[in-house]
Amino acid sequence: MQERRPQFLKNTAEVITVGNELLIGKILNTNAQWLCRRITTLGGRITRVTTIPDEVDVIALTIKQALSRKPDFIVTVGGLGPTYDDKTLQGVAKALSQPPQLNRKALRMVEEKYLELSAKGIVRKTNITAERAKMARLPRGANPLFNPVGTAPASLSHNGRTLIISLPGVPSEMRAIFDNSVTAIAVEKFSNLHFKEKSMMVKNVPESELAPLVDEVMRSFPTVYIKSHPKGGGKHLLLELHFSTYGRSGEEARKTVDSSSKMIRGMIRKI
Amino acid sequence: MQERRPQFLKNTAEVITVGNELLIGKILNTNAQWLCRRITTLGGRITRVTTIPDEVDVIALTIKQALSRKPDFIVTVGGLGPTYDDKTLQGVAKALSQPPQLNRKALRMVEEKYLELSAKGIVRKTNITAERAKMARLPRGANPLFNPVGTAPASLSHNGRTLIISLPGVPSEMRAIFDNSVTAIAVEKFSNLHFKEKSMMVKNVPESELAPLVDEVMRSFPTVYIKSHPKGGGKHLLLELHFSTYGRSGEEARKTVDSSSKMIRGMIRKI
Repeated sequence: MQERRPQFLKNTAEVITVGNELLIGKILNTNAQWLCRRITTLGGRITRVTTIPDEVDVIALTIKQALSRKPDFIVTVGGLGPTYDDKTLQGVAKALSQPPQLNRKALRMVEEKYLELSAKGIVRKTNITAERAKMARLPRGANPLFNPVGTAPASLSHNGRTLIISLPGVPSEMRAIFDNSVTAIAVEKFSNLHFKEKSMMVKNVPESELAPLVDEVMRSFPTVYIKSHPKGGGKHLLLELHFSTYGRSGEEARKTVDSSSKMIRGMIRKI
Repeated sequence: MQERRPQFLKNTAEVITVGNELLIGKILNTNAQWLCRRITTLGGRITRVTTIPDEVDVIALTIKQALSRKPDFIVTVGGLGPTYDDKTLQGVAKALSQPPQLNRKALRMVEEKYLELSAKGIVRKTNITAERAKMARLPRGANPLFNPVGTAPASLSHNGRTLIISLPGVPSEMRAIFDNSVTAIAVEKFSNLHFKEKSMMVKNVPESELAPLVDEVMRSFPTVYIKSHPKGGGKHLLLELHFSTYGRSGEEARKTVDSSSKMIRGMIRKI
């Protein structure tokens, strides 16, 4: 069977989630889904999500491998805090050969956070210990991104055409920094493509009978991706058919998704 | 800072989840968490989870890269159905240079499933179409694993020391096949190690003050991994400290986790 290549080789992004808590299955990776959804909606195409342990060498190698695929964005999540096992920026630094160094702007952000926490009576001491300074150590040449919710700033680096963005793993912090600082960059970078999708429920048609129809519609609409999702078994077969596409405009994408779903609806009636 | 290497280089497993629906963020990857949890509990160590699109070449390359790290298990999830975009076994076949071929045992399983569905009045036709036969095409030399819930059998292949297990993406099918056929293999392969964990809540100690204590306890108990998880902000700082370890016996692992958590409890009282 011939391989259908992705229609748009541009606008690619990879997500790397770092954390042993994910690998032992303690935590469900909702961060990955949130980022995939957000970036897709902004016109980006996520080509890979990788979850790896808190080990500098593994992080560095995984980022190097991602860089070799030349995506527009690499977004790492987790491992930015003050504790021993927060190693993501060391891994990024190693991958980029840009040793971690104290970033003045990041240090200012951390200092102000502790003054704020102290004013609220949440912490007693505001001095910058080694652990606190650690959060301001970014790869050389990186820019800190303000964290509106927590203490550790995020980090933004460049490598060739790729932006490397490192976000903290606490979901509220990750989301706030993304919305605050990354969305605008993504909107600009991915404005040439628009993602649209549509779902259709199909009753009492086995997936195996639907398969050749799906194949035919995908041949007629080469930019459309159709995926069937079986929805529970029992006496009645229920399938969700999910249509998605990227278009040069939102309108174009919507029309393509609508036309392809109408085509298959007509074919199903004739089964 | 010196890298703390994982204590046990054995009992490794990688999970590869295949599906565009994951990459567009339509679906939360609960399968990955379930497998990570299950395999960890059985004494295995998940070293990587990768999510990739439904593309034969990407699947094949990702499996080859995983094989080069020589894990005990590679578990793929998704892409075993009858539709065009179910390509995982083609990818496995390509990675192993074992071309897909009709597997008699698998075909028998698929045939019996359709007879059963027909007897229940769910499908009308029981003939094996090209789409249905596709589910019985396994990499050469693979063994089908019975699917107690759905139609597509899973597949088990060997490559050197690595077992490659391909499970379907429907969660109920994935879990049933794992429990039915994979658990026994994992129990035998991973019986030398036992995973134990424990959580402790810590109030009003900033993560940055806890960090040097965590570091000291991890030095005293080199097999223990301690991770701090901030639990919401507000007026009171709340942290979950999570202790985990693998031991030669369940008893040994439990004692190690208990002793390390007692040590840090004592240190926190003195802050």
